Amino acid sequence: MKPGRGPFDVWAPRADRLRVVIGGETVEMTRGADGWWTPAEPTPDVAGAAVDYGYLIDDEDTPRPDPRSRRQPAGVHQLSRTDDPATYRWNDAGWTGRQLAGSVIYELHVGTFTPEGTFDAALGRIDHLREIGVDLVELMPVNAFNGTHNWGYDGVAWFAVHEGYGGPDGYRRFVDGCHAAGLGVIQDVVYNHLGPSGNYLPEFGPYLKDGANTWGDLVNLDGPDSDEVRRYVLDNVRMWLEDYHVDGLRLDAVHALSDSGHQHLLEEMAVEVAALSAYQRRPLTLIAESDLNDTRLVRPREAGGYGLDAQWSDDFHHALHVALTGETAGYYADFEPLSALAKVCEQGFFHDGTWSSFRGRYHGFPVDRRAMPAWRLVVCNQNHDQIGNRARGDRFTEALDEHQLGCAAMLTLCGPFTPMLFMGEEWAASSPFQFFTSHPEPELGTATAEGRIREFEQMGWDPDVVPDPQHPETYQRSNLDWTELASGRHARLLEVYRALARLRRERPELTDPSFLSVSCTADEDSRVFTMRRGDLLVVANFGDADVELPVEAGGLLFATGEGVGLEAGTLTLPAHAGAVVSR
Amino acid sequence: MKPGRGPFDVWAPRADRLRVVIGGETVEMTRGADGWWTPAEPTPDVAGAAVDYGYLIDDEDTPRPDPRSRRQPAGVHQLSRTDDPATYRWNDAGWTGRQLAGSVIYELHVGTFTPEGTFDAALGRIDHLREIGVDLVELMPVNAFNGTHNWGYDGVAWFAVHEGYGGPDGYRRFVDGCHAAGLGVIQDVVYNHLGPSGNYLPEFGPYLKDGANTWGDLVNLDGPDSDEVRRYVLDNVRMWLEDYHVDGLRLDAVHALSDSGHQHLLEEMAVEVAALSAYQRRPLTLIAESDLNDTRLVRPREAGGYGLDAQWSDDFHHALHVALTGETAGYYADFEPLSALAKVCEQGFFHDGTWSSFRGRYHGFPVDRRAMPAWRLVVCNQNHDQIGNRARGDRFTEALDEHQLGCAAMLTLCGPFTPMLFMGEEWAASSPFQFFTSHPEPELGTATAEGRIREFEQMGWDPDVVPDPQHPETYQRSNLDWTELASGRHARLLEVYRALARLRRERPELTDPSFLSVSCTADEDSRVFTMRRGDLLVVANFGDADVELPVEAGGLLFATGEGVGLEAGTLTLPAHAGAVVSR
Repeated sequence: MKPGRGPFDVWAPRADRLRVVIGGETVEMTRGADGWWTPAEPTPDVAGAAVDYGYLIDDEDTPRPDPRSRRQPAGVHQLSRTDDPATYRWNDAGWTGRQLAGSVIYELHVGTFTPEGTFDAALGRIDHLREIGVDLVELMPVNAFNGTHNWGYDGVAWFAVHEGYGGPDGYRRFVDGCHAAGLGVIQDVVYNHLGPSGNYLPEFGPYLKDGANTWGDLVNLDGPDSDEVRRYVLDNVRMWLEDYHVDGLRLDAVHALSDSGHQHLLEEMAVEVAALSAYQRRPLTLIAESDLNDTRLVRPREAGGYGLDAQWSDDFHHALHVALTGETAGYYADFEPLSALAKVCEQGFFHDGTWSSFRGRYHGFPVDRRAMPAWRLVVCNQNHDQIGNRARGDRFTEALDEHQLGCAAMLTLCGPFTPMLFMGEEWAASSPFQFFTSHPEPELGTATAEGRIREFEQMGWDPDVVPDPQHPETYQRSNLDWTELASGRHARLLEVYRALARLRRERPELTDPSFLSVSCTADEDSRVFTMRRGDLLVVANFGDADVELPVEAGGLLFATGEGVGLEAGTLTLPAHAGAVVSR
Repeated sequence: MKPGRGPFDVWAPRADRLRVVIGGETVEMTRGADGWWTPAEPTPDVAGAAVDYGYLIDDEDTPRPDPRSRRQPAGVHQLSRTDDPATYRWNDAGWTGRQLAGSVIYELHVGTFTPEGTFDAALGRIDHLREIGVDLVELMPVNAFNGTHNWGYDGVAWFAVHEGYGGPDGYRRFVDGCHAAGLGVIQDVVYNHLGPSGNYLPEFGPYLKDGANTWGDLVNLDGPDSDEVRRYVLDNVRMWLEDYHVDGLRLDAVHALSDSGHQHLLEEMAVEVAALSAYQRRPLTLIAESDLNDTRLVRPREAGGYGLDAQWSDDFHHALHVALTGETAGYYADFEPLSALAKVCEQGFFHDGTWSSFRGRYHGFPVDRRAMPAWRLVVCNQNHDQIGNRARGDRFTEALDEHQLGCAAMLTLCGPFTPMLFMGEEWAASSPFQFFTSHPEPELGTATAEGRIREFEQMGWDPDVVPDPQHPETYQRSNLDWTELASGRHARLLEVYRALARLRRERPELTDPSFLSVSCTADEDSRVFTMRRGDLLVVANFGDADVELPVEAGGLLFATGEGVGLEAGTLTLPAHAGAVVSR
């Protein structure tokens, strides 16, 4: 993705000399006034070819990969390989896109979703996704990273698709296949930092600036020469949407982007993507992971916002997690009362200018309930972070019974927000989702593992229970076991998800995007929670006792399992059970 | 479309007695507290059946058609017939919608688009539409009207599809076929008045209120009992989008809606349609015809607007029409300077708080150029009104040469707005589009004809040149002649449209929705107009002399015809010619 440039051109504004090594041959390069270098001699034709190449910067004699490399077949430290998108025959000419409004997202990690850990194998599970009502598949980062397996958030070659997953061709087959099945694809991308190993960008140019966030050095989005760094990001956005036909992006932790320029990168991105959407005549979606509890990100630009489409809202997760598990440590503390869940469902954010004890400060802004469609908030009851960032990477599946898991699904899928499922939750997968890495450098591997374990030790965990991220079994343990679907608790929960998906498609109340269509009650004593959605009433008994509730009810449309009954206007819910009833 | 009601239920809050006549049998009805009546005895099962029925109001003995009738096989004065949407097997399960952004609309009148004048015949021309880059087909009103042929804006049975076009089944086949071909369907609907004959609504209830607009009595959108009248409108909206799978509505003359209630009907409509869009997980589009030059209609609700998607902007038409024809009578007067076209292309509205000599007052508000996507304005160089409301219903095709027609197409399709073509303009159809009616009542027919002729006489026209709307030849004359496509000027212009459609799909600059991407020049002496769109320059020579222009040009991408040349940075344009050149 070098718009208007040759395949071997590269930006290196501060280099004194640059050479490109192509298929073993070294070619001198010439610097243009804009800091882009171009080969001084003719280079091989790369149309349809796969040619290995790298750059010698100044007088260095080890070639570096292309900052915009499409393939890193031997890893992020080695030579790049050309990839010609034109070699692939797309079959999705009739695809007119899949809008976010009303859709259900399914988040998956390609490496652990199937035993094979590839795009092709993931595509083989597409019918499973359709049966649970999924509209958009969200892939955790697939860009090249250090080692063979990794969550993907420490990418260093943002334009390359991880070879182990199937590389660019596998990725194209995956997107194409999803479109054929009527599903859109959301790609998770990370622009707030670069990984700890394999980041050669600073040798090429001022990609970074002083300072660091939680994960690494800051990207230079607003200093001198930042126009070209921003184009690096924006061209990456375009690559996924144009070259790979992806339907949207999930932008990792946008609160960690450091940009005090005249237009925030996110707004510029929204403008470019809106233009691309008009050009391609299909919806293209931008979803931010944001910890800011500020809808400015997702307000239309006509309303003074940045114009993104949606943002994650962790408050829903926290309120639901606490209601289900009773955990109140750390950032869960403020969510202890059941009324927190009611506030979240009715108003979007719990922290909307309220005191956040975890942050030690006031936090957030209210949502415009009159006008903002609730689908702009993407919610979940589990995701890679909420599972994987626990000490043991355990799913709450372990601790909860079937009614509780059904309630988690019911409240996620029957609320007004955009639901996102995390792979395996639909059958209470027994596999954890642990933090895993595979850094080939022993020191980095040790440092990563020790850092991880120390972090949890400081929180009071026994270090022995924290899995070593570098140990291959940590990765293998996180792989889904598809054989368990067929029976018992797994099969029953899967049927619960399918039933909820059917209900969601049948009843328009459940996708009504108006916050004004939601009203909740939360009984702190009995721990009974109700959510009214038009003619439907969603009821969850978070308490440990059976309850009988008078309801203005015509029919029982859904129940989390055995023991739920509706008779003569009385709804019976065993402990932990939930139901959807119609008027 | 009687959500939650029986097929023969009807709202008649002020009737003392109501009977329904079903297949010749008269059944007494019972009034509910909400003013809805329901048969007091069992009625025939209408699933899959076509049953004729009508209502006897109070002691009247002539049955009236159902206000929500789906079929009026013998005309708008006669019995209604049931239609069961479930009898049709839709094939568009994979259809994920067609968004407006970036799309091209094609407006057509079903009765005159083909010799047959039916939905099925129109569908037979779908490849023609695809070849000229059409994404959305907009049908002039298809609801039942008085007589056999009519433009359709005087509908009285808003829920019935005109039998002559093919009725509900033909309509379903049309929409389904469009979806199969990748095209969406926009339906033109009229909610600002009812036609002069066949309007029995006032006998049933307070559908109307005191006062009238240009076309008829005001609809009761805000007086007592208006909730149910609003539901009549809103349920009609839902009928097209839900039952008929239509992709959007064009709302006729919304400035003539009289609504001073707590929420304007248009905002309520936008809210309902947004919810329906989320439910159906596909874009549903609302386009207003508005004479207000106020983007409040199309601002997102999050920005304090009504939340419609787009609105017509006549200013573009007027500026272009004047530039092409030199006509400056009536509402064209203010558009005489070529700079008017430049202002429109750069800023959306010409009248944005400026003096309107035709209106005799200041008019309009500026567009938010920073944030509003330009596709929210739908523009054309011809449409049913701009042609048909001329004295003779003549297309400007008659008066213009091929270069000029090419310029009209070029500026419509290469500007930042949503282009709308009017059937036949793409081949300079020789048929006019005249105002035609077929009122069976002699007095009404005479009154309509005389009114029309008098109106133009008052504007100074010879009454003999104004066609009689009631004369069958006026209708027949307006029918497109598809045989003329094959040769001469018609064939050449069609090729111009196809070339422009290709260019529009190829070059992202042309669909860039940012007003900031447009900058124009207008030379009042030479009458040369230029519009910069990124790397492209669109040039039209409205003058009568050949011109040579220095351009920073890499290539000639489009020319309106012979004689256009680009050499050594000089663009040669014969009189009236236009071109698109790249940097």
